[in-house]
Formats: sequence, structure tokens, C-alpha cells
Amino acid sequence: MMTLKPFPLTRQAFAIYGEVLEAEGAEHFITNQGLAMRFNDLARIDVEAEGGAVKVSVFKTKARPTPIRLELMERHPLGSQIFYPLQDRPWLVVVCDDPTDGASFRAFAATGVQGVNYARNVWHHPLLALDHDSRFLVVDRKGPGNNLEEIKLGETYAQIA
Amino acid sequence: MMTLKPFPLTRQAFAIYGEVLEAEGAEHFITNQGLAMRFNDLARIDVEAEGGAVKVSVFKTKARPTPIRLELMERHPLGSQIFYPLQDRPWLVVVCDDPTDGASFRAFAATGVQGVNYARNVWHHPLLALDHDSRFLVVDRKGPGNNLEEIKLGETYAQIA
Repeated sequence: MMTLKPFPLTRQAFAIYGEVLEAEGAEHFITNQGLAMRFNDLARIDVEAEGGAVKVSVFKTKARPTPIRLELMERHPLGSQIFYPLQDRPWLVVVCDDPTDGASFRAFAATGVQGVNYARNVWHHPLLALDHDSRFLVVDRKGPGNNLEEIKLGETYAQIA
Repeated sequence: MMTLKPFPLTRQAFAIYGEVLEAEGAEHFITNQGLAMRFNDLARIDVEAEGGAVKVSVFKTKARPTPIRLELMERHPLGSQIFYPLQDRPWLVVVCDDPTDGASFRAFAATGVQGVNYARNVWHHPLLALDHDSRFLVVDRKGPGNNLEEIKLGETYAQIA
């Protein structure tokens, strides 16, 4: 069994998979009668293929049992997908270039003020929350067509260190 | 000076202004390998007028000084706008049908697990956070055209009870 060690989630490290949505280091300006900073336009929303449109949902999830075992990966051929934590709790992100190539897997430790936008067609693990009753805002695609591919990882893969 | 008393934010009470984004009472199904509930498709995203597209941003805001005085209202003629709290903190929502008609103003007390989507052209007050360093995820419109109308309320309006 392969063991993945999570690295800190940074824009640079995640760039080939999509965007990290966070205030730090983002373009911003003052708004809201001078009281707020707007960290602007943080994600490339890509949902319009084959008649798709944006959908906003809330996930409420249990914690992953530990040690966390990765049993499948998925991707969305027709749309990008944002997960943003709603409680300032750390969580995990796992992506890969090729689910049949263990060397291509990457695990990232996201903070509670970091969301991610998986680009269209990027292989990623389903949501990995570390605490019970964790909520996330999800911005993804609705519309016709098959927007889900899943691949089971079998006995080989993987656990998070 | 008019004083507005906030009422609890409910889907029904807010329906003529847009949607309340919350898990409670929403259509949902199990996902994420059985670990999560997805409260699905909570908002009518309406940003495509005049070549618009969806934009996702983070707001970091100071608390409103109390007593909270309302000095202006705004609306977005080309797009809907979601605000969703990122820290499970209560906040306030103020809307009206006509900013020149005090009787049309409504204040709502939103919980920390309720977001709102202001429908296109709905008059609303800029973001009203009650605590310092409050963060919100915002889903609104980018694109050409003038998407902001503001009206100053003058001496008349209003404070929150």
C-alpha cells in the first residue's frame, strides 16, 4: 500500500490541477463602504460545455475514518468544481494525473480558509473532511450529459500519512 | 429615523428577493461514498445578461459599527449575487422594494449557516457583518456593462434595532 504525505496547499503547487481560492496573495480592492476587502475572481468557472450551467450546493459530511484509505478517484469531463470549507477547519485534497500511476498522486493539506477549484477533467478524490459535521459550499455544473467518471483503485492505493 | 427590527431569515419570507441557501429543508441526496449529504442546487444564478459570467470571490470585512445605520442601498441590474458566511457567525440582511419607501424595507437575521442569493435588480444593503474579520464567499457576475446602482438614503433611514 502506498502512503501519501500531504504537502501544504499553495497556488503554485496546485496550479496544474486548478485554483486555490484564498485571500492571501490574491488581487483585491476595498469595497462595502470601506469596511471590506474583496479578493476578486478567484476561480476559473468552466461549466458551459454541452449546455451546462452553474450550480451552488451545500455538502454536510462526516469525517473520514482514519487512517484515511483512498479507494477511488473521480473526474468531471464537463465541468469545474469548487469546494470551500464553511467552518475554518483543515481538510485534505488528493489529485493525480493518472489514477493507474501511483507516482502521479499528490496529497495537499488545505487550511480552513482555502477552497479549491478542480479544473475540468482533473482526477481528484471525493471530499476528505477531517471532522464530523463539516460543511462545504460547492460550485459545480448542472445540465445534460455524463459529467462523472470514477475509477476504483483496488488493493494498491493508498493511505494518507 | 426609522428603526428596522430583524426577523428570522426564512425561505418563505425572502422568496420575493431571491433564495436562502441553507441545508435545512432543501432537496438532498447522499454522496461522497455514503459520507455526505448534498443539499442540491440552492440558488438561481442569473449572470449571463450582456455577456456576463460567474465570478467567485472572498470578502473579508470589519464589523459594522453599532448601532448599525443604513446610509445607502444598491442593486445589480445585470446579475444575481450570493453571500455565504465562512465562519458560522450570524449576520444581517436588509432589502427593500423601493428605497424611497421606508415601509418597503425588511431586515432579516441570518444565521451562520444561511447564505442568500439576491436576485437581479433586488435592492439590498451592502454586506452587514456583526463581527470583525468576518469572511464571506461571494458568487456574482463579471463582464461588460454597468451592474451597479446605488442610492443614498439621506437623513431619514434607518437603524437596526
